[in-house]
Amino acid sequence: MKIKMDDSVKELKAVWMDEKKVNMIDQRYLPSELKFFIAEDFKDIHSAIKNMVVRGAPTIGVTAAYGMAQAIIMDEDTRKAAEIIRSARPTAYDLFHAVDYMLDNITRPKEAAEEYASSVVEKCRKIGENGAKLIEDGYDILTHCNAGALATVDHGTALAPIRASARDGKDIHVYVDETRPRLQGARLTAWELYNEDISHSVIVDNASGYYMQRGDIDIVIVGTDRIVSNGDIANKIGTYEKAVVAKENDIPFYVAAPVTTYDELMEKGNDIPIESRDDDEVRMINGSLITPKRSPVKNPAFDVTPAKYITGYITEKGIFSPSERKEMF
Amino acid sequence: MKIKMDDSVKELKAVWMDEKKVNMIDQRYLPSELKFFIAEDFKDIHSAIKNMVVRGAPTIGVTAAYGMAQAIIMDEDTRKAAEIIRSARPTAYDLFHAVDYMLDNITRPKEAAEEYASSVVEKCRKIGENGAKLIEDGYDILTHCNAGALATVDHGTALAPIRASARDGKDIHVYVDETRPRLQGARLTAWELYNEDISHSVIVDNASGYYMQRGDIDIVIVGTDRIVSNGDIANKIGTYEKAVVAKENDIPFYVAAPVTTYDELMEKGNDIPIESRDDDEVRMINGSLITPKRSPVKNPAFDVTPAKYITGYITEKGIFSPSERKEMF
Repeated sequence: MKIKMDDSVKELKAVWMDEKKVNMIDQRYLPSELKFFIAEDFKDIHSAIKNMVVRGAPTIGVTAAYGMAQAIIMDEDTRKAAEIIRSARPTAYDLFHAVDYMLDNITRPKEAAEEYASSVVEKCRKIGENGAKLIEDGYDILTHCNAGALATVDHGTALAPIRASARDGKDIHVYVDETRPRLQGARLTAWELYNEDISHSVIVDNASGYYMQRGDIDIVIVGTDRIVSNGDIANKIGTYEKAVVAKENDIPFYVAAPVTTYDELMEKGNDIPIESRDDDEVRMINGSLITPKRSPVKNPAFDVTPAKYITGYITEKGIFSPSERKEMF
Repeated sequence: MKIKMDDSVKELKAVWMDEKKVNMIDQRYLPSELKFFIAEDFKDIHSAIKNMVVRGAPTIGVTAAYGMAQAIIMDEDTRKAAEIIRSARPTAYDLFHAVDYMLDNITRPKEAAEEYASSVVEKCRKIGENGAKLIEDGYDILTHCNAGALATVDHGTALAPIRASARDGKDIHVYVDETRPRLQGARLTAWELYNEDISHSVIVDNASGYYMQRGDIDIVIVGTDRIVSNGDIANKIGTYEKAVVAKENDIPFYVAAPVTTYDELMEKGNDIPIESRDDDEVRMINGSLITPKRSPVKNPAFDVTPAKYITGYITEKGIFSPSERKEMF
């Protein structure tokens, strides 16, 4: 991803390794400050993942792979490093997978970690290449949350076709849902688009329907945490509403994700467990209380968008409609 | 409306007059502090309306009526008072109407102002009585923004049937959309419900679709700024999305408003001018920046909900379906 520095534009990744150090863009300070976090050992890796210096399952996976490579190269106790890194987040599949992958490649740590990272990035690049075919010159695109380079090391999933289209010289504009409660759209997606000089507008989540109704949106592209057997998806809270309103206005609604997101063993969307997150994400913004002190809140983090609202899945293997979903493998 | 004080519960209105003083709940400090604003003369009234000590068209109208009564009683220059009060907000129909009403009743200021206020409150009480028939024991209700007593002196429009149902002893629960960008749901609706001891949960606007999809919402009730000839309505940004998702899930969607909100001269919703408000409402929350400094934002304040998504209008004259709308007069 491009990042504007004081006097230049650099091409950086969300996480990378040089010699023995693992470097990350510290996402906790974005968009107001660009800071880097340097992990010297696996304890730093654990703390970076746990404290959300990095977020997004693919970026977490790659950070864990680099952390394991670092531990192996530095002759640390590999079992202990694996255990500590694994414990950083409770439900991150990519995290466990990356650690196991590194334990299977213990004799060639740096190469294995770089292969793991490249494979993540390459999938996203192909998602971008495939998805860009859906974006015509002059298109206005709506996206929700941050399925960008910060979450996937580079390119992004939902943002990959947008990046690829802009780099191809297409004149596009992106409507960015701010994405309450954690505001990943306003904070991270807008920051990525600003750095790439891609025309965009941040809107409150309430305003996306207004622009869809007016005919101002040509396509909606979102990411996903899981695609299940019947084609339903889980994604950031609010995705379902956007999908329903898109369908009502005949706007194509695409979900961008690597094919490994497809979980054939889970039958339908309603089987996906929905995490309820901390009340304070709703109650407080930047440390300041916005509700009455004694008012109860509810904070579901994800919702399920049934397959009937989905036009297609943009993957590294091509674009599949819900009825073609089983061909993704 | 009931308001919890330090050691008691009081029955108060958003604005009231005693002797020569006009008293208001200072809505700028809610929900964190309950402060009162006392207007000593028409200059204070002008500043209270302009600086949003009070908001909501009916409350603004009554504040203006009391302000005119005060000016007349205190032997001020009535023409000048009228001019100053009228200039407090540029597009508030109720404000102009209230000032004209007082100029027509210059010989009996206190009585006329109290009649004006009572008529506003009585309409809302009847909206509550009529709307409560739609709310069954055990219902979960979704509302958007603040169409409450603070906006209408007492009872509210969308909140009136909820208040009436709770006072009738029905066991109800209210899902309160926080309503970005200005957060009137989180700040004001939640505060009113807390004070009335009505069970409620504040949710981010993105989460209402999740609860509708799960079957957790029995009815949606919102207010409106304008109902036009074909039955379309304008209301706070986000209302359109809620209406589309409600229809998709077969949830009745009601709009509560006095019949004077019906503007027969405007043909259809698309004719309603939509105000774009200040960028900083999106960029900043409680004084703190949430987007990249250089990211553009868009901030439409209202949207239009077409009549086909509306189950009915709850008015002081009864409940009307969109096809019966012309009978409202």
